[in-house]
Amino acid sequence: MNETPHTTELRSEPVTVIGLGLMGQALAAAFLAAGHPTTVWNRSSGKAAELVAAGAVLAPSPDAAVRAGSLVVVCLSDAAAVHDVLGPHRDALAGRTLVNLTSGTSEEARELTALTTSYLDGAIMAVPEVIGRPEAFLLFSGEREAFDRHRAALQRLGTATYFGEDPGLAALYDVALLGLMWGTLNAFLHGAALLGSAKVDASAFAPFATRWVGSVTEFITAYAGQIDRGAYPPEDATVETHLATMKYLVRESAAAGIDTDWPARIQALAERALAAGHEGTSYASLIEVFRGRA
Amino acid sequence: MNETPHTTELRSEPVTVIGLGLMGQALAAAFLAAGHPTTVWNRSSGKAAELVAAGAVLAPSPDAAVRAGSLVVVCLSDAAAVHDVLGPHRDALAGRTLVNLTSGTSEEARELTALTTSYLDGAIMAVPEVIGRPEAFLLFSGEREAFDRHRAALQRLGTATYFGEDPGLAALYDVALLGLMWGTLNAFLHGAALLGSAKVDASAFAPFATRWVGSVTEFITAYAGQIDRGAYPPEDATVETHLATMKYLVRESAAAGIDTDWPARIQALAERALAAGHEGTSYASLIEVFRGRA
Repeated sequence: MNETPHTTELRSEPVTVIGLGLMGQALAAAFLAAGHPTTVWNRSSGKAAELVAAGAVLAPSPDAAVRAGSLVVVCLSDAAAVHDVLGPHRDALAGRTLVNLTSGTSEEARELTALTTSYLDGAIMAVPEVIGRPEAFLLFSGEREAFDRHRAALQRLGTATYFGEDPGLAALYDVALLGLMWGTLNAFLHGAALLGSAKVDASAFAPFATRWVGSVTEFITAYAGQIDRGAYPPEDATVETHLATMKYLVRESAAAGIDTDWPARIQALAERALAAGHEGTSYASLIEVFRGRA
Repeated sequence: MNETPHTTELRSEPVTVIGLGLMGQALAAAFLAAGHPTTVWNRSSGKAAELVAAGAVLAPSPDAAVRAGSLVVVCLSDAAAVHDVLGPHRDALAGRTLVNLTSGTSEEARELTALTTSYLDGAIMAVPEVIGRPEAFLLFSGEREAFDRHRAALQRLGTATYFGEDPGLAALYDVALLGLMWGTLNAFLHGAALLGSAKVDASAFAPFATRWVGSVTEFITAYAGQIDRGAYPPEDATVETHLATMKYLVRESAAAGIDTDWPARIQALAERALAAGHEGTSYASLIEVFRGRA
Protein backbone atom coordinates (compact mmCIF):
# COMPACT_ATOMS: atom_id res chain seq x y z
CA MET A 1 0.00 0.00 0.00
CA ASN A 2 1.18 3.51 -0.74
CA GLU A 3 2.33 5.93 1.85
CA THR A 4 0.03 8.92 1.63
CA PRO A 5 1.50 12.20 2.80
CA HIS A 6 -0.82 14.51 4.68
CA THR A 7 1.10 17.75 4.32
CA THR A 8 -1.44 19.26 1.97
CA GLU A 9 -5.18 19.18 2.41
CA LEU A 10 -6.75 16.79 -0.03
CA ARG A 11 -10.32 17.10 -1.20
CA SER A 12 -10.91 13.45 -0.54
CA GLU A 13 -8.01 12.14 1.43
CA PRO A 14 -7.72 8.40 2.03
CA VAL A 15 -9.20 7.52 5.40
CA THR A 16 -9.10 4.42 7.56
CA VAL A 17 -11.73 3.34 10.05
CA ILE A 18 -10.74 0.75 12.64
CA GLY A 19 -13.54 -0.77 14.67
CA LEU A 20 -16.84 -1.50 12.93
CA GLY A 21 -19.44 -1.47 15.63
CA LEU A 22 -22.60 0.43 14.75
CA MET A 23 -20.81 3.75 15.17
CA GLY A 24 -17.69 2.70 13.27
CA GLN A 25 -19.81 1.46 10.39
CA ALA A 26 -21.68 4.77 10.32
CA LEU A 27 -18.40 6.70 10.27
CA ALA A 28 -17.00 4.63 7.40
CA ALA A 29 -20.27 4.89 5.48
CA ALA A 30 -20.21 8.70 5.82
CA PHE A 31 -16.65 8.87 4.50
CA LEU A 32 -17.56 6.58 1.59
CA ALA A 33 -20.67 8.59 0.79
CA ALA A 34 -18.52 11.72 0.64
CA GLY A 35 -16.13 10.11 -1.84
CA HIS A 36 -13.19 9.38 0.44
CA PRO A 37 -11.11 6.30 -0.42
CA THR A 38 -11.98 4.34 2.70
CA THR A 39 -10.16 1.40 4.22
CA VAL A 40 -11.66 -0.52 7.13
CA TRP A 41 -10.56 -3.13 9.62
CA ASN A 42 -12.39 -5.01 12.33
CA ARG A 43 -11.42 -7.96 14.51
CA SER A 44 -14.28 -9.98 13.01
CA SER A 45 -14.25 -9.15 9.30
CA GLY A 46 -17.92 -10.01 8.75
CA LYS A 47 -18.95 -6.57 9.93
CA ALA A 48 -17.22 -5.04 6.90
CA ALA A 49 -19.41 -6.77 4.31
CA GLU A 50 -21.87 -3.94 3.71
CA LEU A 51 -19.11 -1.34 3.62
CA VAL A 52 -17.07 -3.40 1.15
CA ALA A 53 -20.16 -3.73 -1.03
CA ALA A 54 -20.40 0.09 -0.92
CA GLY A 55 -16.78 0.49 -2.03
CA ALA A 56 -14.63 0.21 1.08
CA VAL A 57 -11.40 -1.75 1.11
CA LEU A 58 -11.09 -4.34 3.86
CA ALA A 59 -7.50 -4.37 5.10
CA PRO A 60 -5.95 -7.71 6.06
CA SER A 61 -4.40 -6.36 9.27
CA PRO A 62 -4.43 -3.29 11.53
CA ASP A 63 -0.98 -2.44 10.20
CA ALA A 64 -2.17 -2.46 6.60
CA ALA A 65 -5.27 -0.52 7.57
CA VAL A 66 -3.22 2.21 9.25
CA ARG A 67 -0.87 2.50 6.27
CA ALA A 68 -3.78 2.96 3.85
CA GLY A 69 -5.00 6.25 5.30
CA SER A 70 -3.57 9.66 6.04
CA LEU A 71 -6.36 9.99 8.57
CA VAL A 72 -6.83 6.97 10.84
CA VAL A 73 -10.09 6.92 12.78
CA VAL A 74 -10.44 4.41 15.56
CA CYS A 75 -13.75 3.59 17.27
CA LEU A 76 -13.45 0.60 19.58
CA SER A 77 -15.05 -0.55 22.81
CA ASP A 78 -12.68 1.28 25.14
CA ALA A 79 -9.22 2.81 25.51
CA ALA A 80 -7.65 -0.55 26.41
CA ALA A 81 -8.81 -1.95 23.07
CA VAL A 82 -7.22 1.01 21.26
CA HIS A 83 -3.90 0.30 22.99
CA ASP A 84 -4.23 -3.42 22.15
CA VAL A 85 -5.01 -2.91 18.48
CA LEU A 86 -2.75 0.05 17.69
CA GLY A 87 0.05 -0.25 20.24
CA PRO A 88 2.04 -2.65 18.04
CA HIS A 89 1.76 -0.36 15.00
CA ARG A 90 3.40 2.88 16.05
CA ASP A 91 5.74 2.75 13.07
CA ALA A 92 2.78 2.60 10.72
CA LEU A 93 1.10 5.51 12.55
CA ALA A 94 4.13 7.78 12.15
CA GLY A 95 3.32 10.65 9.78
CA ARG A 96 -0.40 10.00 10.01
CA THR A 97 -3.08 11.57 12.20
CA LEU A 98 -4.83 9.29 14.64
CA VAL A 99 -8.37 10.34 15.54
CA ASN A 100 -9.70 8.44 18.53
CA LEU A 101 -13.50 8.38 18.63
CA THR A 102 -13.64 5.62 21.24
CA SER A 103 -15.65 6.58 24.33
CA GLY A 104 -13.44 7.23 27.30
CA THR A 105 -12.26 9.68 29.91
CA SER A 106 -10.07 12.72 29.45
CA GLU A 107 -7.25 10.90 31.21
CA GLU A 108 -7.50 7.98 28.80
CA ALA A 109 -7.40 10.42 25.90
CA ARG A 110 -4.24 12.01 27.24
CA GLU A 111 -2.62 8.60 27.66
CA LEU A 112 -3.40 7.61 24.07
CA THR A 113 -1.26 10.44 22.76
CA ALA A 114 1.67 8.11 23.45
CA LEU A 115 0.68 6.14 20.34
CA THR A 116 1.63 8.83 17.85
CA THR A 117 2.82 12.39 17.40
CA SER A 118 -0.32 13.57 15.60
CA TYR A 119 -3.28 12.81 17.85
CA LEU A 120 -6.85 14.06 17.96
CA ASP A 121 -9.40 12.88 20.44
CA GLY A 122 -13.06 13.10 19.65
CA ALA A 123 -16.45 12.59 21.22
CA ILE A 124 -19.60 11.98 19.24
CA MET A 125 -22.86 13.51 20.46
CA ALA A 126 -25.08 11.63 18.07
CA VAL A 127 -26.55 8.24 17.38
CA PRO A 128 -25.08 6.30 14.44
CA GLU A 129 -28.16 7.05 12.30
CA VAL A 130 -27.40 10.78 12.06
CA ILE A 131 -23.65 10.52 11.39
CA GLY A 132 -22.89 12.44 8.19
CA ARG A 133 -25.59 15.04 8.87
CA PRO A 134 -25.08 18.51 10.41
CA GLU A 135 -27.10 17.58 13.50
CA ALA A 136 -24.39 15.06 14.45
CA PHE A 137 -22.12 16.99 16.83
CA LEU A 138 -18.50 15.88 17.02
CA LEU A 139 -16.18 17.39 19.60
CA PHE A 140 -12.43 17.37 18.99
CA SER A 141 -9.34 18.26 20.95
CA GLY A 142 -5.62 17.65 20.60
CA GLU A 143 -3.20 18.80 17.93
CA ARG A 144 -4.71 21.95 16.41
CA GLU A 145 -2.73 21.67 13.20
CA ALA A 146 -4.04 18.14 12.67
CA PHE A 147 -7.61 19.32 13.15
CA ASP A 148 -7.12 22.14 10.65
CA ARG A 149 -5.48 19.80 8.14
CA HIS A 150 -8.22 17.18 8.33
CA ARG A 151 -11.14 19.48 8.95
CA ALA A 152 -12.72 18.78 5.56
CA ALA A 153 -12.78 15.04 6.18
CA LEU A 154 -13.95 15.40 9.78
CA GLN A 155 -16.81 17.68 8.70
CA ARG A 156 -18.07 14.79 6.55
CA LEU A 157 -19.11 13.11 9.79
CA GLY A 158 -21.22 16.00 11.11
CA THR A 159 -20.63 19.37 12.73
CA ALA A 160 -17.04 19.16 13.96
CA THR A 161 -15.91 21.57 16.68
CA TYR A 162 -12.39 21.97 18.02
CA PHE A 163 -11.93 22.78 21.73
CA GLY A 164 -8.20 23.04 22.33
CA GLU A 165 -4.80 21.41 22.48
CA ASP A 166 -5.45 19.43 25.67
CA PRO A 167 -6.52 16.05 24.21
CA GLY A 168 -8.79 15.49 27.22
CA LEU A 169 -11.05 18.45 26.42
CA ALA A 170 -13.36 16.63 23.98
CA ALA A 171 -14.15 13.98 26.59
CA LEU A 172 -14.69 16.63 29.28
CA TYR A 173 -16.95 18.77 27.09
CA ASP A 174 -18.83 15.62 26.14
CA VAL A 175 -19.74 14.65 29.70
CA ALA A 176 -20.29 18.28 30.74
CA LEU A 177 -22.81 18.72 27.91
CA LEU A 178 -24.43 15.35 28.55
CA GLY A 179 -24.65 16.29 32.23
CA LEU A 180 -26.42 19.46 31.18
CA MET A 181 -28.85 17.31 29.24
CA TRP A 182 -29.50 14.93 32.14
CA GLY A 183 -30.01 17.77 34.61
CA THR A 184 -32.42 19.52 32.26
CA LEU A 185 -34.31 16.34 31.33
CA ASN A 186 -34.59 15.17 34.93
CA ALA A 187 -35.99 18.53 35.96
CA PHE A 188 -38.44 18.44 33.06
CA LEU A 189 -39.55 14.92 33.91
CA HIS A 190 -39.96 15.80 37.58
CA GLY A 191 -42.01 18.85 36.60
CA ALA A 192 -44.09 16.75 34.21
CA ALA A 193 -44.75 14.28 37.02
CA LEU A 194 -45.79 17.14 39.31
CA LEU A 195 -48.12 18.72 36.76
CA GLY A 196 -49.38 15.26 35.81
CA SER A 197 -50.68 14.97 39.37
CA ALA A 198 -53.01 17.86 38.47
CA LYS A 199 -54.02 16.15 35.20
CA VAL A 200 -51.80 18.35 33.02
CA ASP A 201 -50.44 16.51 29.98
CA ALA A 202 -46.68 16.53 29.49
CA SER A 203 -47.35 17.89 26.00
CA ALA A 204 -49.14 20.87 27.54
CA PHE A 205 -46.14 21.55 29.78
CA ALA A 206 -43.51 21.03 27.06
CA PRO A 207 -44.01 24.28 25.08
CA PHE A 208 -43.75 26.39 28.24
CA ALA A 209 -40.78 24.36 29.43
CA THR A 210 -39.04 24.82 26.10
CA ARG A 211 -39.63 28.55 26.04
CA TRP A 212 -38.53 28.92 29.64
CA VAL A 213 -35.33 26.96 29.04
CA GLY A 214 -34.57 29.60 26.44
CA SER A 215 -34.78 32.23 29.18
CA VAL A 216 -32.60 30.09 31.44
CA THR A 217 -29.81 30.25 28.86
CA GLU A 218 -29.65 33.99 29.54
CA PHE A 219 -28.86 33.20 33.18
CA ILE A 220 -26.21 30.73 31.98
CA THR A 221 -24.51 33.45 29.95
CA ALA A 222 -24.69 35.98 32.78
CA TYR A 223 -23.50 33.50 35.42
CA ALA A 224 -20.59 32.37 33.24
CA GLY A 225 -19.29 35.92 33.28
CA GLN A 226 -19.70 36.09 37.06
CA ILE A 227 -17.85 32.79 37.50
CA ASP A 228 -14.93 33.96 35.40
CA ARG A 229 -14.78 37.22 37.34
CA GLY A 230 -15.04 35.32 40.62
CA ALA A 231 -17.87 37.51 41.93
CA TYR A 232 -21.57 36.71 42.20
CA PRO A 233 -23.59 39.92 42.51
CA PRO A 234 -27.34 39.18 42.92
CA GLU A 235 -28.38 40.88 39.68
CA ASP A 236 -31.56 38.80 39.44
CA ALA A 237 -32.20 37.10 42.76
CA THR A 238 -30.29 35.92 45.80
CA VAL A 239 -29.70 32.30 46.80
CA GLU A 240 -32.02 32.96 49.77
CA THR A 241 -34.84 33.94 47.41
CA HIS A 242 -34.29 30.77 45.38
CA LEU A 243 -34.22 28.69 48.55
CA ALA A 244 -37.58 30.06 49.71
CA THR A 245 -39.20 28.89 46.46
CA MET A 246 -37.37 25.55 46.46
CA LYS A 247 -39.23 24.75 49.65
CA TYR A 248 -42.50 25.16 47.75
CA LEU A 249 -41.28 22.66 45.17
CA VAL A 250 -40.52 20.16 47.93
CA ARG A 251 -43.94 20.74 49.53
CA GLU A 252 -45.80 20.46 46.23
CA SER A 253 -43.95 17.25 45.40
CA ALA A 254 -44.82 15.74 48.77
CA ALA A 255 -48.46 16.83 48.46
CA ALA A 256 -48.64 15.31 44.97
CA GLY A 257 -47.17 12.05 46.20
CA ILE A 258 -44.27 12.18 43.75
CA ASP A 259 -40.51 11.99 44.30
CA THR A 260 -39.19 14.49 46.84
CA ASP A 261 -35.53 13.43 46.65
CA TRP A 262 -34.80 15.45 43.53
CA PRO A 263 -36.14 18.79 44.86
CA ALA A 264 -34.66 18.07 48.31
CA ARG A 265 -31.27 17.63 46.68
CA ILE A 266 -31.68 20.93 44.88
CA GLN A 267 -32.63 22.59 48.15
CA ALA A 268 -29.65 21.02 49.93
CA LEU A 269 -27.25 22.46 47.36
CA ALA A 270 -28.58 25.98 47.94
CA GLU A 271 -28.37 25.45 51.70
CA ARG A 272 -24.74 24.38 51.35
CA ALA A 273 -23.98 27.57 49.43
CA LEU A 274 -25.58 29.64 52.18
CA ALA A 275 -23.80 27.67 54.91
CA ALA A 276 -20.53 28.51 53.16
CA GLY A 277 -21.29 32.21 53.40
CA HIS A 278 -22.84 32.96 50.03
CA GLU A 279 -25.81 34.91 51.41
CA GLY A 280 -26.77 37.81 49.18
CA THR A 281 -25.10 36.37 46.09
CA SER A 282 -26.54 35.15 42.80
CA TYR A 283 -27.25 31.51 42.06
CA ALA A 284 -23.88 31.35 40.29
CA SER A 285 -22.21 31.03 43.69
CA LEU A 286 -23.38 27.40 43.75
CA ILE A 287 -20.40 26.61 41.54
CA GLU A 288 -18.37 26.78 44.75
CA VAL A 289 -20.46 23.87 46.05
CA PHE A 290 -19.80 21.88 42.89
CA ARG A 291 -16.12 22.75 43.07
CA GLY A 292 -16.14 21.12 46.49
CA ARG A 293 -15.27 24.40 48.20
CA ALA A 294 -18.63 24.96 49.90
CA MET B 1 -66.98 54.82 47.05
CA ASN B 2 -68.78 53.73 43.92
CA GLU B 3 -69.50 50.15 43.09
CA THR B 4 -67.84 49.45 39.77
CA PRO B 5 -69.43 46.71 37.71
CA HIS B 6 -67.06 44.46 35.79
CA THR B 7 -69.47 42.99 33.28
CA THR B 8 -67.91 44.82 30.36
CA GLU B 9 -64.25 45.15 29.65
CA LEU B 10 -63.03 48.60 30.44
CA ARG B 11 -60.01 50.12 28.78
CA SER B 12 -58.66 51.25 32.10
CA GLU B 13 -60.67 49.59 34.78
CA PRO B 14 -60.17 50.64 38.40
CA VAL B 15 -57.76 48.33 40.14
CA THR B 16 -56.79 47.78 43.73
CA VAL B 17 -53.47 46.51 45.00
CA ILE B 18 -53.33 45.22 48.56
CA GLY B 19 -49.88 44.56 49.99
CA LEU B 20 -47.09 46.99 49.13
CA GLY B 21 -43.90 45.03 49.51
CA LEU B 22 -41.42 45.51 46.68
CA MET B 23 -43.54 43.37 44.36
CA GLY B 24 -46.83 44.96 45.33
CA GLN B 25 -45.39 48.41 44.77
CA ALA B 26 -44.15 47.33 41.33
CA LEU B 27 -47.59 45.96 40.43
CA ALA B 28 -49.35 49.16 41.49
CA ALA B 29 -46.78 51.29 39.67
CA ALA B 30 -47.34 49.30 36.45
CA PHE B 31 -51.12 49.79 36.69
CA LEU B 32 -50.65 53.50 37.33
CA ALA B 33 -48.22 53.86 34.45
CA ALA B 34 -50.80 52.25 32.17
CA GLY B 35 -53.47 54.72 33.20
CA HIS B 36 -55.56 52.55 35.52
CA PRO B 37 -57.25 54.31 38.42
CA THR B 38 -55.30 52.59 41.18
CA THR B 39 -56.18 52.24 44.84
CA VAL B 40 -53.69 50.77 47.28
CA TRP B 41 -53.66 49.57 50.84
CA ASN B 42 -50.90 48.32 53.12
CA ARG B 43 -50.81 47.54 56.82
CA SER B 44 -48.16 50.23 57.29
CA SER B 45 -49.28 53.11 55.11
CA GLY B 46 -45.81 54.59 54.73
CA LYS B 47 -45.04 52.20 51.89
CA ALA B 48 -47.73 53.90 49.78
CA ALA B 49 -46.06 57.32 49.74
CA GLU B 50 -44.31 57.02 46.37
CA LEU B 51 -47.37 55.52 44.73
CA VAL B 52 -49.64 58.23 46.09
CA ALA B 53 -47.22 60.82 44.75
CA ALA B 54 -47.59 59.08 41.36
CA GLY B 55 -51.38 59.28 41.48
CA ALA B 56 -52.56 56.28 43.48
CA VAL B 57 -55.32 56.59 46.07
CA LEU B 58 -54.47 55.26 49.51
CA ALA B 59 -57.57 53.55 50.93
CA PRO B 60 -58.26 53.96 54.66
CA SER B 61 -59.12 50.25 55.13
CA PRO B 62 -58.98 46.92 53.30
CA ASP B 63 -62.75 47.12 52.90
CA ALA B 64 -62.56 50.51 51.21
CA ALA B 65 -59.66 49.32 49.08
CA VAL B 66 -61.58 46.29 47.86
CA ARG B 67 -64.67 48.36 47.02
CA ALA B 68 -62.60 50.81 44.93
CA GLY B 69 -61.56 48.27 42.28
CA SER B 70 -63.29 45.87 39.93
CA LEU B 71 -60.00 43.96 39.92
CA VAL B 72 -58.49 43.38 43.35
CA VAL B 73 -54.87 42.25 43.34
CA VAL B 74 -53.40 40.97 46.56
CA CYS B 75 -49.69 40.40 47.12
CA LEU B 76 -48.90 39.64 50.75
CA SER B 77 -46.34 37.57 52.62
CA ASP B 78 -48.27 34.30 52.55
CA ALA B 79 -51.71 32.73 52.21
CA ALA B 80 -52.45 33.15 55.92
CA ALA B 81 -51.99 36.90 55.55
CA VAL B 82 -54.45 36.91 52.64
CA HIS B 83 -57.04 35.15 54.79
CA ASP B 84 -56.38 37.58 57.66
CA VAL B 85 -56.66 40.73 55.55
CA LEU B 86 -59.50 39.74 53.18
CA GLY B 87 -61.45 37.14 55.17
CA PRO B 88 -63.55 39.82 56.95
CA HIS B 89 -64.42 41.52 53.64
CA ARG B 90 -66.24 38.87 51.61
CA ASP B 91 -69.21 41.17 51.15
CA ALA B 92 -66.99 43.81 49.60
CA LEU B 93 -65.36 41.19 47.34
CA ALA B 94 -68.69 40.02 45.96
CA GLY B 95 -68.98 40.98 42.29
CA ARG B 96 -65.28 41.69 41.98
CA THR B 97 -62.42 39.52 40.78
CA LEU B 98 -59.76 38.67 43.32
CA VAL B 99 -56.31 38.02 41.85
CA ASN B 100 -53.98 36.47 44.37
CA LEU B 101 -50.32 37.04 43.50
CA THR B 102 -49.06 36.00 46.93
CA SER B 103 -46.48 33.18 46.78
CA GLY B 104 -47.91 29.89 47.93
CA THR B 105 -48.73 26.31 47.11
CA SER B 106 -51.43 25.02 44.80
CA GLU B 107 -53.38 23.81 47.82
CA GLU B 108 -53.30 27.26 49.40
CA ALA B 109 -54.54 28.71 46.12
CA ARG B 110 -57.47 26.29 46.04
CA GLU B 111 -58.36 27.17 49.64
CA LEU B 112 -58.37 30.89 48.88
CA THR B 113 -61.23 30.43 46.41
CA ALA B 114 -63.48 30.34 49.47
CA LEU B 115 -63.02 34.11 49.74
CA THR B 116 -65.00 34.96 46.62
CA THR B 117 -66.81 33.56 43.60
CA SER B 118 -64.47 35.15 41.06
CA TYR B 119 -60.94 34.03 41.86
CA LEU B 120 -57.71 33.98 39.90
CA ASP B 121 -54.45 32.76 41.27
CA GLY B 122 -51.20 33.95 39.82
CA ALA B 123 -47.48 33.36 40.05
CA ILE B 124 -44.90 35.92 39.00
CA MET B 125 -41.74 34.71 37.29
CA ALA B 126 -39.94 38.03 37.44
CA VAL B 127 -38.19 40.38 39.80
CA PRO B 128 -40.06 43.60 40.72
CA GLU B 129 -37.80 45.66 38.44
CA VAL B 130 -39.19 44.11 35.24
CA ILE B 131 -42.88 44.18 36.17
CA GLY B 132 -44.73 46.00 33.41
CA ARG B 133 -42.42 44.72 30.69
CA PRO B 134 -43.06 41.74 28.37
CA GLU B 135 -40.16 39.78 29.90
CA ALA B 136 -42.09 39.58 33.18
CA PHE B 137 -43.94 36.26 32.97
CA LEU B 138 -47.15 35.97 34.97
CA LEU B 139 -48.93 32.64 35.23
CA PHE B 140 -52.65 32.56 35.97
CA SER B 141 -55.22 29.91 36.75
CA GLY B 142 -58.76 29.88 38.09
CA GLU B 143 -61.94 31.29 36.61
CA ARG B 144 -61.40 31.50 32.86
CA GLU B 145 -64.09 34.11 32.34
CA ALA B 146 -62.44 36.36 34.91
CA PHE B 147 -59.08 36.02 33.16
CA ASP B 148 -60.63 36.90 29.81
CA ARG B 149 -62.52 39.85 31.30
CA HIS B 150 -59.44 41.30 32.99
CA ARG B 151 -56.84 40.24 30.47
CA ALA B 152 -56.12 43.81 29.34
CA ALA B 153 -55.32 44.93 32.88
CA LEU B 154 -53.32 41.78 33.68
CA GLN B 155 -51.25 42.22 30.52
CA ARG B 156 -50.14 45.60 31.90
CA LEU B 157 -48.03 43.67 34.40
CA GLY B 158 -46.14 41.59 31.86
CA THR B 159 -46.80 38.56 29.65
CA ALA B 160 -49.86 36.97 31.23
CA THR B 161 -50.60 33.32 30.46
CA TYR B 162 -53.66 31.36 31.53
CA PHE B 163 -53.26 27.67 32.39
CA GLY B 164 -56.70 26.40 33.34
CA GLU B 165 -59.65 26.41 35.71
CA ASP B 166 -57.88 24.59 38.56
CA PRO B 167 -56.71 27.54 40.70
CA GLY B 168 -53.67 25.52 41.79
CA LEU B 169 -52.19 25.31 38.29
CA ALA B 170 -50.35 28.64 38.36
CA ALA B 171 -48.49 27.65 41.53
CA LEU B 172 -47.70 24.19 40.11
CA TYR B 173 -46.45 25.54 36.77
CA ASP B 174 -44.40 28.09 38.70
CA VAL B 175 -42.46 25.53 40.73
CA ALA B 176 -42.26 23.11 37.80
CA LEU B 177 -40.66 25.80 35.65
CA LEU B 178 -38.40 26.99 38.46
CA GLY B 179 -37.38 23.37 39.03
CA LEU B 180 -36.48 23.16 35.36
CA MET B 181 -34.32 26.23 35.86
CA TRP B 182 -32.56 24.84 38.94
CA GLY B 183 -31.90 21.48 37.30
CA THR B 184 -30.49 23.17 34.21
CA LEU B 185 -28.42 25.70 36.16
CA ASN B 186 -27.03 23.09 38.55
CA ALA B 187 -25.98 20.93 35.62
CA PHE B 188 -24.38 23.91 33.92
CA LEU B 189 -22.54 24.91 37.10
CA HIS B 190 -21.34 21.34 37.65
CA GLY B 191 -20.13 21.18 34.05
CA ALA B 192 -18.42 24.56 34.43
CA ALA B 193 -16.68 23.29 37.56
CA LEU B 194 -15.57 20.16 35.67
CA LEU B 195 -14.25 22.08 32.67
CA GLY B 196 -12.73 24.64 35.01
CA SER B 197 -10.54 21.85 36.34
CA ALA B 198 -9.01 21.74 32.84
CA LYS B 199 -8.62 25.54 32.79
CA VAL B 200 -11.64 26.13 30.56
CA ASP B 201 -13.43 29.41 31.34
CA ALA B 202 -17.14 29.23 32.08
CA SER B 203 -17.61 31.81 29.33
CA ALA B 204 -15.99 29.41 26.86
CA PHE B 205 -18.39 26.65 27.92
CA ALA B 206 -21.51 28.85 27.97
CA PRO B 207 -22.07 29.24 24.20
CA PHE B 208 -21.85 25.48 23.66
CA ALA B 209 -24.04 24.85 26.68
CA THR B 210 -26.62 27.31 25.40
CA ARG B 211 -26.67 25.81 21.92
CA TRP B 212 -26.87 22.28 23.32
CA VAL B 213 -29.76 23.17 25.62
CA GLY B 214 -31.58 24.16 22.44
CA SER B 215 -31.10 20.61 21.18
CA VAL B 216 -32.25 19.22 24.51
CA THR B 217 -35.59 20.97 24.07
CA GLU B 218 -36.17 18.69 21.08
CA PHE B 219 -35.87 15.71 23.42
CA ILE B 220 -38.30 17.43 25.80
CA THR B 221 -40.87 17.74 23.04
CA ALA B 222 -40.40 14.15 21.88
CA TYR B 223 -40.45 12.73 25.41
CA ALA B 224 -43.60 14.69 26.30
CA GLY B 225 -45.39 12.85 23.52
CA GLN B 226 -44.06 9.51 24.76
CA ILE B 227 -45.17 10.30 28.32
CA ASP B 228 -48.70 11.15 27.21
CA ARG B 229 -48.85 7.96 25.13
CA GLY B 230 -47.46 5.95 28.06
CA ALA B 231 -44.79 4.30 25.92
CA TYR B 232 -41.06 5.02 25.80
CA PRO B 233 -39.59 3.65 22.57
CA PRO B 234 -35.80 4.22 22.42
CA GLU B 235 -35.89 6.47 19.36
CA ASP B 236 -32.59 8.13 20.28
CA ALA B 237 -30.86 6.06 22.93
CA THR B 238 -31.71 3.61 25.68
CA VAL B 239 -31.43 4.24 29.40
CA GLU B 240 -28.55 1.70 29.42
CA THR B 241 -26.64 3.80 26.90
CA HIS B 242 -27.16 6.90 29.02
CA LEU B 243 -26.08 5.02 32.13
CA ALA B 244 -22.82 3.94 30.53
CA THR B 245 -21.91 7.56 29.85
CA MET B 246 -23.11 8.75 33.26
CA LYS B 247 -20.39 6.61 34.76
CA TYR B 248 -17.84 8.63 32.80
CA LEU B 249 -19.26 11.82 34.30
CA VAL B 250 -18.87 10.37 37.79
CA ARG B 251 -15.29 9.27 37.03
CA GLU B 252 -14.31 12.59 35.48
CA SER B 253 -15.78 14.44 38.46
CA ALA B 254 -13.82 12.29 40.90
CA ALA B 255 -10.62 12.67 38.88
CA ALA B 256 -11.09 16.44 38.78
CA GLY B 257 -11.65 16.57 42.54
CA ILE B 258 -15.05 18.21 42.19
CA ASP B 259 -18.47 17.21 43.55
CA THR B 260 -19.48 13.64 42.70
CA ASP B 261 -22.85 13.68 44.49
CA TRP B 262 -24.68 15.42 41.66
CA PRO B 263 -23.60 12.98 38.90
CA ALA B 264 -24.00 10.04 41.29
CA ARG B 265 -27.60 11.10 41.90
CA ILE B 266 -28.18 11.30 38.16
CA GLN B 267 -26.70 7.83 37.76
CA ALA B 268 -28.84 6.46 40.61
CA LEU B 269 -32.02 7.72 38.93
CA ALA B 270 -31.17 5.85 35.72
CA GLU B 271 -30.33 2.75 37.73
CA ARG B 272 -33.70 2.93 39.46
CA ALA B 273 -35.44 3.08 36.09
CA LEU B 274 -33.54 -0.01 34.95
CA ALA B 275 -34.21 -1.82 38.22
CA ALA B 276 -37.92 -1.17 37.63
CA GLY B 277 -37.73 -2.92 34.26
CA HIS B 278 -37.23 -0.02 31.86
CA GLU B 279 -34.37 -1.59 29.93
CA GLY B 280 -34.49 -0.79 26.24
CA THR B 281 -36.64 2.30 26.71
CA SER B 282 -35.92 5.97 26.12
CA TYR B 283 -34.85 8.37 28.85
CA ALA B 284 -38.49 9.47 29.15
CA SER B 285 -39.16 6.32 31.22
CA LEU B 286 -37.43 8.08 34.13
CA ILE B 287 -40.70 9.89 34.71
CA GLU B 288 -41.84 6.66 36.36
CA VAL B 289 -39.06 7.15 38.90
CA PHE B 290 -40.18 10.71 39.59
CA ARG B 291 -43.78 9.56 39.84
CA GLY B 292 -42.60 7.27 42.61
CA ARG B 293 -43.50 4.18 40.64
CA ALA B 294 -39.98 2.96 39.96
